[in-house]
Amino acid sequence: MQRHGSKRREQCSGLGPTSVPTVSIVIIREATDQDWARIYPFFSAIVAAGTTFAYPESLSLEAARPVWMEQSPGRTVVAAEGDAILGSAKMGPNRAGRGSHVATASFMVDPTQAGRGVGRALGEDVLVWARSAGYRSMQFNAVVETNTGAVHLWRSLGFQILTTIPEAFDHHEHGLVGLHIMFQKLTEGEDADNALERSPSG
Amino acid sequence: MQRHGSKRREQCSGLGPTSVPTVSIVIIREATDQDWARIYPFFSAIVAAGTTFAYPESLSLEAARPVWMEQSPGRTVVAAEGDAILGSAKMGPNRAGRGSHVATASFMVDPTQAGRGVGRALGEDVLVWARSAGYRSMQFNAVVETNTGAVHLWRSLGFQILTTIPEAFDHHEHGLVGLHIMFQKLTEGEDADNALERSPSG
Repeated sequence: MQRHGSKRREQCSGLGPTSVPTVSIVIIREATDQDWARIYPFFSAIVAAGTTFAYPESLSLEAARPVWMEQSPGRTVVAAEGDAILGSAKMGPNRAGRGSHVATASFMVDPTQAGRGVGRALGEDVLVWARSAGYRSMQFNAVVETNTGAVHLWRSLGFQILTTIPEAFDHHEHGLVGLHIMFQKLTEGEDADNALERSPSG
Repeated sequence: MQRHGSKRREQCSGLGPTSVPTVSIVIIREATDQDWARIYPFFSAIVAAGTTFAYPESLSLEAARPVWMEQSPGRTVVAAEGDAILGSAKMGPNRAGRGSHVATASFMVDPTQAGRGVGRALGEDVLVWARSAGYRSMQFNAVVETNTGAVHLWRSLGFQILTTIPEAFDHHEHGLVGLHIMFQKLTEGEDADNALERSPSG
């Protein structure tokens, strides 16, 4: 679990509540079933905007739940600030069986919370998880090329663009644009056999 | 539906059955629920061999069924020779929503029927279907780089390798090998708006 905030809540001083400074602590934690109802509003708004995700559109709360809420060995986390959910990430093996040593992940940040570093905090959490779980690499299958903020963020976290599938996304504003495949090795310099032993691929 | 065979069955001549030449007619047709029990033996053998598919391993007949038998708008076909199923292909949109104008497909040929052109016949059928259904392009997400027969076949049918995900497949014999992403435009020279109108992406 990672904590992000300008300062930690100070110990109670015995003074009235007005003397306690307002703080903002964002916690990345595993999502619970109860969180879904607070993820779904920005999930559905982001899909409906038609600029970043090739997901089924107009899914109900219950129909969308399995799209985002992963089962083990996958994992879904939220960036929470008190009762508010600022963003969420889901992650897991990119393929089954003999491809399950490569991880993948997807990210959504509530558009009203943009610019606060929530996406970066989620990305860092996902990379920590993937290395810890023994994945050898991480692959993003469909990063919309016009989503330059995301592309810049993933590059800064170590991902490279392997290729761009031409005209693979029908962008609400720009029409047909490419989908980047982005990739990062996670076990650089590590002995391959050790990494495989820790692999979740079984 | 496509027919492949050295010759068509000759009309009845009124002579005894020994005078009718032996013929081999392979038909590509949509798979029925009843076909699955005859696909599953080579499906499970091919997955277990560990050289071409990153699928869950050791799936039962019923657990594997939804992995291969597609629902609309996807489609599963078989190459049938009389009662025998020689091979099968499944196809459909590669992504949902704003990515659903790109098709994908997977192919399995019974190893005992290798070298008869079944894979090529299935590949040609899939391309005819994808163009007819209005897809703009077709993407293969995970062609094992050591599966040189398949790579050669897909190249000969118009696909190119866009990139190779390094070490993304744990090959039973060769260890970690790459997965090619192969791609083909299907609407070259066609007016984009017309193609989009015919797109199944809605």
